[in-house]
Amino acid sequence: MSNQSITMEEIVSLCKRRGFIFQSYDLYGGLQGLYDYGPLGCELKKNLKEAWWQDMVYSRHDVEGIDGSILTHKQALKYSGHEDTFTDPMVDCKDCKFRMRADHIDGKCTNCGSTNLTEARDFNLMFKTHYGPVESTDSTAYLRPETAQSIFTNFKNVLDATSRKIPFGIAQIGKAFRNEITPRNFIFRVREFEQMELEFFVKPGEDDTWHEYWIKERLNWWQQQGINPENLVLEPQKKDDLSHYAKATTDILYRFPHGLEELEGVANRTDYDLGSHTKNQAELNIQASVKDNPDSISKLQIQTPGEKPYIPFVIEPSAGLDRGVLALLVDAYCKETLADGKQRTVLKLKPSLAPIKVAVIPLAKNNPEIVAIAKEITESLQALKIGRIRYEDTGNIGKAYRRNDEVGTPLCITVDFETLEQEPKTVTIRHRDSTEQIRIDYLEITSYIQSQLN
Amino acid sequence: MSNQSITMEEIVSLCKRRGFIFQSYDLYGGLQGLYDYGPLGCELKKNLKEAWWQDMVYSRHDVEGIDGSILTHKQALKYSGHEDTFTDPMVDCKDCKFRMRADHIDGKCTNCGSTNLTEARDFNLMFKTHYGPVESTDSTAYLRPETAQSIFTNFKNVLDATSRKIPFGIAQIGKAFRNEITPRNFIFRVREFEQMELEFFVKPGEDDTWHEYWIKERLNWWQQQGINPENLVLEPQKKDDLSHYAKATTDILYRFPHGLEELEGVANRTDYDLGSHTKNQAELNIQASVKDNPDSISKLQIQTPGEKPYIPFVIEPSAGLDRGVLALLVDAYCKETLADGKQRTVLKLKPSLAPIKVAVIPLAKNNPEIVAIAKEITESLQALKIGRIRYEDTGNIGKAYRRNDEVGTPLCITVDFETLEQEPKTVTIRHRDSTEQIRIDYLEITSYIQSQLN
Repeated sequence: MSNQSITMEEIVSLCKRRGFIFQSYDLYGGLQGLYDYGPLGCELKKNLKEAWWQDMVYSRHDVEGIDGSILTHKQALKYSGHEDTFTDPMVDCKDCKFRMRADHIDGKCTNCGSTNLTEARDFNLMFKTHYGPVESTDSTAYLRPETAQSIFTNFKNVLDATSRKIPFGIAQIGKAFRNEITPRNFIFRVREFEQMELEFFVKPGEDDTWHEYWIKERLNWWQQQGINPENLVLEPQKKDDLSHYAKATTDILYRFPHGLEELEGVANRTDYDLGSHTKNQAELNIQASVKDNPDSISKLQIQTPGEKPYIPFVIEPSAGLDRGVLALLVDAYCKETLADGKQRTVLKLKPSLAPIKVAVIPLAKNNPEIVAIAKEITESLQALKIGRIRYEDTGNIGKAYRRNDEVGTPLCITVDFETLEQEPKTVTIRHRDSTEQIRIDYLEITSYIQSQLN
Repeated sequence: MSNQSITMEEIVSLCKRRGFIFQSYDLYGGLQGLYDYGPLGCELKKNLKEAWWQDMVYSRHDVEGIDGSILTHKQALKYSGHEDTFTDPMVDCKDCKFRMRADHIDGKCTNCGSTNLTEARDFNLMFKTHYGPVESTDSTAYLRPETAQSIFTNFKNVLDATSRKIPFGIAQIGKAFRNEITPRNFIFRVREFEQMELEFFVKPGEDDTWHEYWIKERLNWWQQQGINPENLVLEPQKKDDLSHYAKATTDILYRFPHGLEELEGVANRTDYDLGSHTKNQAELNIQASVKDNPDSISKLQIQTPGEKPYIPFVIEPSAGLDRGVLALLVDAYCKETLADGKQRTVLKLKPSLAPIKVAVIPLAKNNPEIVAIAKEITESLQALKIGRIRYEDTGNIGKAYRRNDEVGTPLCITVDFETLEQEPKTVTIRHRDSTEQIRIDYLEITSYIQSQLN
């Protein structure tokens, strides 16, 4: 099914109703561009993170992981260029004091219509705070605007601790913060978000080949998460649109309800990052244009016996985790008419990503025998450590199936009166996508479930 | 082995040298009380989080998870009491402008020795920032000082989405921030840290029983993570030391190198939290003393047919994740003299928590046959999705064993010349704790490894 017909409103409504995603602090009116993941959303997000870490760290020989702090040293964001260039041009209305983006207005205040506006001024998108007991310019720290800088500034620490050789990468999943002027499109453009970033360090000259490699890898990966290849598009950025540090960037776009937009960017960042944060810049033949750095006390170079020291190039596949969650929800969302003429909504998520793996349903919730068996099955499945198993005793069986279809539970197990009558005991297993129901031997439940979820 | 003889310096040195934990932004001189988790530290932390989530969410019938935002609405921290009471008394030196904690001085500035000091004034420990394009009092937001408030303010959202009945809990793992005046003792007292918090909602009157239940559960849980019971102590807080919201709190203390200190607190928070954030407070017979709240638009009550609506009590087991990592490292750290008289350092971590599960070592890294087999074994183990498997070809075999002992790798597999000569092929498996080595059939490696790690 194409996702052209799905509206963002349907997704937002499902997310709120079934506990995927809530607006943060909605009981106090909310904060624009800030969301909390509820019971199902946090599982979906956790599963997507786990899939990424599995494939980017555990399954590879050449990647290390880190988990850096969110509060960031002022110097790191000075030399990275963020203090100077991470800005949007803004205009203030002199009458109503409203502030707006200069490129979003047409000569008049978008709030009150006045033409009495200031000149455009640069507004930095980083969140600022003060670190330590005294508030002063010296104590300024930022919330990181990207996870990448924790990786670059730890390059030598990781190199020293692991004895890695080029090429190798450092991966990180974590929160980043941007004070976007106009957050919009649900969890697509928000002020607090999570990134899944790999910085892959290569020899200068081998960067183009690795860039191509990572573009292909990352496109495949999104397809492996169950996203329809027709909804994914590769788009090389035009030279004029590139960030100042990038030699080339290819975006992986997804067909969101609000349009074809970036899900992940794969950039060739050259030697800009390590070149910016290293000491002794003059000795290192840095190709990128970097700010003079008299403050760094660390040499971020590769030194191999018999070779001249050099600064590696960086290939960066940088994915938005929240955007990934949104893409998964949109791509999996289906409305279907069943054989009996009834409508259902079903999230056709890949089982490894589904928030709930199995729902165990007692057909009669007042029958102690049925309840005891259903609870026993729930516990034996929980012991497998395969994620969330839900004991589901709200509403009738039809409603229980619909509720689980709607949140993407791949399998439902129903304990019914036949279970009590037969020896060996059997239960009904229902498959989400086909709605097919089969009966299996009670003793075979765990092995059947494991085989179906893998 | 007792951990009385372990110094914090030994732990810090191991952490830096082997890539567990680095000081953040050390290349710019660092920021006090801020740390990054390196390749091994991020795995240890991830494994501890996973163990907690497994036992607190997946293995239970009565807990939902959430993942809330770090940026926090001003109103939430006004009604929670943090704006007023989350403070330390501070004194400024009028001569050198240094600021210090009032309870840490003895009449003289700790920086310059002057007695020309201000009166003590309250200093709020929350990190403040501005949200949105305009910097004003209205745009103030905070970095959350605890994850708990995301849970309380989402209480109704979770209740509506899941149809839960009392008793039930909401769990969360995430970052919190406190601008501590004197961060110290490595990752024990820091400014950015992670919490693992459960808020368990119960009927008033059943709170004492549940409080006792959770104290026992949590103490057992830390023991199950491999911590020596002798290093864990329960300490009920004295009435005078209790937070303003708490009816009773029992701390779980761990014998850290710097002393017996809090690892987790289990508090009976009464109906203070939901009572503070609810609307229509006057109708709800709230027992705690709460601030009048005309701002909340949500009723955080339990309404059961035939019963009067009420505000549940909250039992909160709140653990410090970084402190948990530190306790695991300290508790697992051993120095041993082996049979051959050589010394080794070994981290006797529970296998499920170990950063690296298996190291695969080619005895001769220039022998293509040995290398090919070692790589094949590495890949087949990586496919099991059991965590990090390291292909280890640096240094000789003795060094490789020592390196892996020191970071807690439970099993090493060595591919040697015998592997090539024998049919069926065999490899050496070495156990970390006993240093025992056995040979097993190549085809049995995966099943053997799985059985040993469980």
